[in-house]
Amino acid sequence: MRRAGRHFLQIPGPTNVPDRILRAIDQPTIDHRGPAFRELALRVLAGLQRIFRTRHPVIVFPASGTGAWEAALVNTLSPGDRVLMYETGHFATLWYEMAKRLGLDPLFLESDWRSGVDPERIEQALRQDRQARIRAVCVVHNETSTGVTSRIPEVRQAIDRVGHPALFMVDTISSLASMPYEHDGWGVDVTVGGSQKGLMLPPGLSFTAVSPRALEAHRQARCARSYFDWSAMLEANARGFFPYTPATNLLFGLDAAIRMLEEEGLERVFARHARHAAATRAAVAAWGLETVCRHPAEHSASLTAVLLPEGFDADALRAHILERFDVSLGNGLGRLAGRAFRIGHLGDFNDPMLMGTLCAVEMGMREFGVPLAASGVVAAMERLSASR
Amino acid sequence: MRRAGRHFLQIPGPTNVPDRILRAIDQPTIDHRGPAFRELALRVLAGLQRIFRTRHPVIVFPASGTGAWEAALVNTLSPGDRVLMYETGHFATLWYEMAKRLGLDPLFLESDWRSGVDPERIEQALRQDRQARIRAVCVVHNETSTGVTSRIPEVRQAIDRVGHPALFMVDTISSLASMPYEHDGWGVDVTVGGSQKGLMLPPGLSFTAVSPRALEAHRQARCARSYFDWSAMLEANARGFFPYTPATNLLFGLDAAIRMLEEEGLERVFARHARHAAATRAAVAAWGLETVCRHPAEHSASLTAVLLPEGFDADALRAHILERFDVSLGNGLGRLAGRAFRIGHLGDFNDPMLMGTLCAVEMGMREFGVPLAASGVVAAMERLSASR
Amino acid sequence: MRRAGRHFLQIPGPTNVPDRILRAIDQPTIDHRGPAFRELALRVLAGLQRIFRTRHPVIVFPASGTGAWEAALVNTLSPGDRVLMYETGHFATLWYEMAKRLGLDPLFLESDWRSGVDPERIEQALRQDRQARIRAVCVVHNETSTGVTSRIPEVRQAIDRVGHPALFMVDTISSLASMPYEHDGWGVDVTVGGSQKGLMLPPGLSFTAVSPRALEAHRQARCARSYFDWSAMLEANARGFFPYTPATNLLFGLDAAIRMLEEEGLERVFARHARHAAATRAAVAAWGLETVCRHPAEHSASLTAVLLPEGFDADALRAHILERFDVSLGNGLGRLAGRAFRIGHLGDFNDPMLMGTLCAVEMGMREFGVPLAASGVVAAMERLSASR
Amino acid sequence: MRRAGRHFLQIPGPTNVPDRILRAIDQPTIDHRGPAFRELALRVLAGLQRIFRTRHPVIVFPASGTGAWEAALVNTLSPGDRVLMYETGHFATLWYEMAKRLGLDPLFLESDWRSGVDPERIEQALRQDRQARIRAVCVVHNETSTGVTSRIPEVRQAIDRVGHPALFMVDTISSLASMPYEHDGWGVDVTVGGSQKGLMLPPGLSFTAVSPRALEAHRQARCARSYFDWSAMLEANARGFFPYTPATNLLFGLDAAIRMLEEEGLERVFARHARHAAATRAAVAAWGLETVCRHPAEHSASLTAVLLPEGFDADALRAHILERFDVSLGNGLGRLAGRAFRIGHLGDFNDPMLMGTLCAVEMGMREFGVPLAASGVVAAMERLSASR
Repeated sequence: MRRAGRHFLQIPGPTNVPDRILRAIDQPTIDHRGPAFRELALRVLAGLQRIFRTRHPVIVFPASGTGAWEAALVNTLSPGDRVLMYETGHFATLWYEMAKRLGLDPLFLESDWRSGVDPERIEQALRQDRQARIRAVCVVHNETSTGVTSRIPEVRQAIDRVGHPALFMVDTISSLASMPYEHDGWGVDVTVGGSQKGLMLPPGLSFTAVSPRALEAHRQARCARSYFDWSAMLEANARGFFPYTPATNLLFGLDAAIRMLEEEGLERVFARHARHAAATRAAVAAWGLETVCRHPAEHSASLTAVLLPEGFDADALRAHILERFDVSLGNGLGRLAGRAFRIGHLGDFNDPMLMGTLCAVEMGMREFGVPLAASGVVAAMERLSASR
Repeated sequence: MRRAGRHFLQIPGPTNVPDRILRAIDQPTIDHRGPAFRELALRVLAGLQRIFRTRHPVIVFPASGTGAWEAALVNTLSPGDRVLMYETGHFATLWYEMAKRLGLDPLFLESDWRSGVDPERIEQALRQDRQARIRAVCVVHNETSTGVTSRIPEVRQAIDRVGHPALFMVDTISSLASMPYEHDGWGVDVTVGGSQKGLMLPPGLSFTAVSPRALEAHRQARCARSYFDWSAMLEANARGFFPYTPATNLLFGLDAAIRMLEEEGLERVFARHARHAAATRAAVAAWGLETVCRHPAEHSASLTAVLLPEGFDADALRAHILERFDVSLGNGLGRLAGRAFRIGHLGDFNDPMLMGTLCAVEMGMREFGVPLAASGVVAAMERLSASR
Repeated sequence: MRRAGRHFLQIPGPTNVPDRILRAIDQPTIDHRGPAFRELALRVLAGLQRIFRTRHPVIVFPASGTGAWEAALVNTLSPGDRVLMYETGHFATLWYEMAKRLGLDPLFLESDWRSGVDPERIEQALRQDRQARIRAVCVVHNETSTGVTSRIPEVRQAIDRVGHPALFMVDTISSLASMPYEHDGWGVDVTVGGSQKGLMLPPGLSFTAVSPRALEAHRQARCARSYFDWSAMLEANARGFFPYTPATNLLFGLDAAIRMLEEEGLERVFARHARHAAATRAAVAAWGLETVCRHPAEHSASLTAVLLPEGFDADALRAHILERFDVSLGNGLGRLAGRAFRIGHLGDFNDPMLMGTLCAVEMGMREFGVPLAASGVVAAMERLSASR
Repeated sequence: MRRAGRHFLQIPGPTNVPDRILRAIDQPTIDHRGPAFRELALRVLAGLQRIFRTRHPVIVFPASGTGAWEAALVNTLSPGDRVLMYETGHFATLWYEMAKRLGLDPLFLESDWRSGVDPERIEQALRQDRQARIRAVCVVHNETSTGVTSRIPEVRQAIDRVGHPALFMVDTISSLASMPYEHDGWGVDVTVGGSQKGLMLPPGLSFTAVSPRALEAHRQARCARSYFDWSAMLEANARGFFPYTPATNLLFGLDAAIRMLEEEGLERVFARHARHAAATRAAVAAWGLETVCRHPAEHSASLTAVLLPEGFDADALRAHILERFDVSLGNGLGRLAGRAFRIGHLGDFNDPMLMGTLCAVEMGMREFGVPLAASGVVAAMERLSASR
């Protein structure tokens, strides 16, 4: 049976793709070796540099964000290389497992899935690495499974305090173009991104921003690679082309997305995300529930993960909300499965979309019997009205 | 500056056009004299009969709904003919003015813009018309300017009680495919409709459903007409064509719209509209405000017009809500200008869209200083949860 | 069964709508009373003035071109008024019949459907009209049924030689934005246009460009009118709005169309049409066939009507070409039915589209047994190569 | 400056994407972990089995076709493994280079780039491999750089005659859904495909069809892999999901593409491609030019590569044709650079599109001074008329 009205895609990505981007994708595919493509490619590659805040290359793969994880590792490392990773949650864990699968030797700092990277533990681990065996520190900026954001500049400072030569790699899949991020300014060597979150595109593009140090490491790195190899990319990109067929129509969309973000202004985009996140947390607090994120300084601006009281099945609640209100929420992942749900408030989003979402969550929880202290919706409205 | 997120088009039409319909319209135009068009036309004309609930022809003009008003009048009447019309609000008044402009002699039963057609007054007026000079009774089913729905079957009964031969014409522009309506079953001679409300299409198509008695009148009617003439239409339509170039791409959309309405099921569509209207009224009541519609039996299912307390400018409030929340509301029209605003809850709509809208209205009114008794949003959520 | 590949819509309108225009139409409908609409409307109305080459208003109706015919007549004339019309072909005849249906008294100068308006006959007819009973001279610029273009400036000179006060009305439905046309420069009072030809839009919009003299006549004109009335339009348009719901999404498309025409440059657009018409005529000549148009100075740049030799049924040929090659051609209309077919080469068109069309026609005619003197395709290629 | 008319994308892929597929892609992205996605995924995966003609799994990667090459190798082989490859042209060479880069030990049978795989040389090479060191035979079905199609069933027979245990891998990137192909029936172990050719989609999806033997090899294979790993895919696919974010919107398109191919019927699709290829070769012969493909039995149905006479620069000719006629042709690749151009006649294609293309090529060559024996266009029209 047809469902009337617009679906609310409030998972923390893929996000609601704006019509303008969908329509840009919906244009005839062009010759990826012709002059029109060249113009597009050069414009998009330059635009990505502004989004990542870097003067160095950003490489685009026709792949999901997961592909950019792989690209970051295989382009800079050799089999058996030790990398330092940090268990901020499900996605950090997946990246760690990928590193193992790719023949690396990751050291995984365990954590509680409710806090961000602790810069002191990074510092400590690097200090213990007397022979500088660790070749890379890999952390997730915004852990999509928990709604916790790590303080990347402080991690950089921790590395610098030790003077450790490891590369610094950061996954910004669910933070890029939603929260402030500075590839060059924060001293990151490889930044990993994807198309389907703050960039408001469908999934299918992934990015690695690459520092000069990362490129140097690339030249020595012996991990087998071909599809995700940077060299052929950089060489072809310099002329506005790609070494193999790019995902042309998604690049049409990316071109539109960059223009839209810059029309709004990145600072305004970040402020908008922060404001919606604050309103969502006001709702959670009013309901008398807890966010997965423990530390006020680490709340994500792009999603909020909410813990249900003992005895409630978060997946059953999500199914109920989807069925009754046509609102998709993110599930609890890994050790949060069944215990938490995630509200995505990133990408192309505004106040009535947020309120429609929060109303659906509130109605859903009440219908499901979750005891609520007060109306989170009322609290969120107050929070929104208090700011612009 | 770009506005992020989806605009909420909550005027009482044009309504939010579903993607599936926009994409159907977004197909290459075809030869309107070729075999593919013929199939489309015959399918669409048959589908419209199911929507209007008639076994008789429904005629499609490439025109706004206003064109269908004109078609109804000029096809069935002759210059100087008397018609009985009823001042339910702004749109009834516009139709009345059109009748005058077209050289007819309309008798206009005045009213307070807060109630529907009073069948007794119709009966009375017809009884006084001893020589049966009145050739048509023209009423608006759902007055879009007030949110008041008239009881069409009772008007029919009033005409029948007098045994008056006047044609019965009904404007369903903002009720068709949103509220129960029966062209044949309710004994209507000409039903006027448009594309941009319950049919979920962009504006540009208008409809007249035509009874055998209306067709008979048509053969005698001497009002000058050409573009809106029924005869050439009916003749060409019988073969699946049109006498002049039809609005082909909007017909693609109409084809999709009919399919979508039938996938959902018209009964379910009507129930959905009634439920959203009830939730909206619950909000209005909780706010301590009044609807324009006075009589519980006459509340519209497709829109709710809300009166602001004295001293507040409804247009300034609407501008504020548009500016802050990107939600478009309907303005007060005619004598309601500045005093009322209208919330459209018709077409392709669902619970979180309604709640996003009501939250924007509530936030907007609070920010604007309108004193509210309680949260209408909370009341609307309760109402929605109480029903499905 | 699905047909592979792109349909070639080579009727003389509706024309192939470019993707960019279809995608522009495929955007969410907006509030036609809100500020975003206002900007759109003012921009589009100004753009139309540039297309019609006029400093005076151009009025847009949500209607087919046929509606603009009616608007031209009912806004400027009174019942019983005499108008001078000229039988250039099927469409001129339809306009004449409309004039009769609307209660006017048209004088129809008969002709052979193979030539344009003869300015001398116009002059003669006006001279005979001693009491200046003729209120308007109505001619078709480009007769879509025959591919004959009339010399509008010479008709104007003929009127001026007599010093006759009649209004001058011109139908440019299939010439606007395909051939040079000057509403002000050529002294035309009402120019009638439509969206689905040179403007590259789907059908559903019609235009009247209106001179100050036409507006003056409008104030006296007593034909009944409402939907097509200019006064309410002009008043609302001045503020960027419409008196009733406009066809918003088609206006999105019109906005894109004007921009595209101006990006290409109107002079280049006209040269392109002239070149494709010349190549088509080269093909017709090589085939040893005749065009409907007799006089070299009157060949249309937007379509070519071709006469088949005696004994061949043009409609059967068209059906064969449609079935085998998925190319739609225009049929012979009225007295040309079955004897001629029409090739549309207007709108969004280029060399390989023309050649694909001409190849389909040539293959179709050969398969159908039409004796051809030589390959028209080869001749057309030579003609195209000879010019740019 | 804007170019009027539709671009002809006649490179041998990406191909002209039909509107219906572009519009399918142009739908809101959905939750890739929700029930609606699951239905889509299961339907698409089943459809791909019908396209590849296999009862075994087909795996979809969010990647270009190049990614599927990598997937085929890393999922079935271990570092240092010997593979037998065959130099049919540029793409076979690229696959060979990828194998080296991935740490394999490819044996490359050199050839002249004008013929397909010689089954006897495969047989010979396998016979010499006494210790069965060769773990895989990798060939390209349709070499996109030359327009030569290899006889896959005969290669299979060659392997079988030796009774060699090597896996058999075939690249069908430019043949799938354009020419007959039988993954199961022809005894292929891994078939590699992409979205942007016969499947009529934009680039961004790649496929591997996997035999039970390939899966068995997968379990032993030690090449490092993560993104392209089959195991996680197969496990998730079984439930209708993907282990990481899939390219949702391209899957919407794939769903439409499969439906369209089956509406036309794969046999008819193949016949259509064969007919267009024959007409193209008729043109080449009439021009007095040579195809790159030497052997009549090996002509590709999806593209034709044409050799220019000595002294002409094929890239300059292509630039001329693009500039004058807006037709994109494929360039000569690798050792054919500058000497040949390629005409793609695959995907969503029909007779007038082919003829528009051939006319542009003929006009372009004449303008460029290439001596032509006769009109290839005339010859192609005769060939098309002779068959359906």
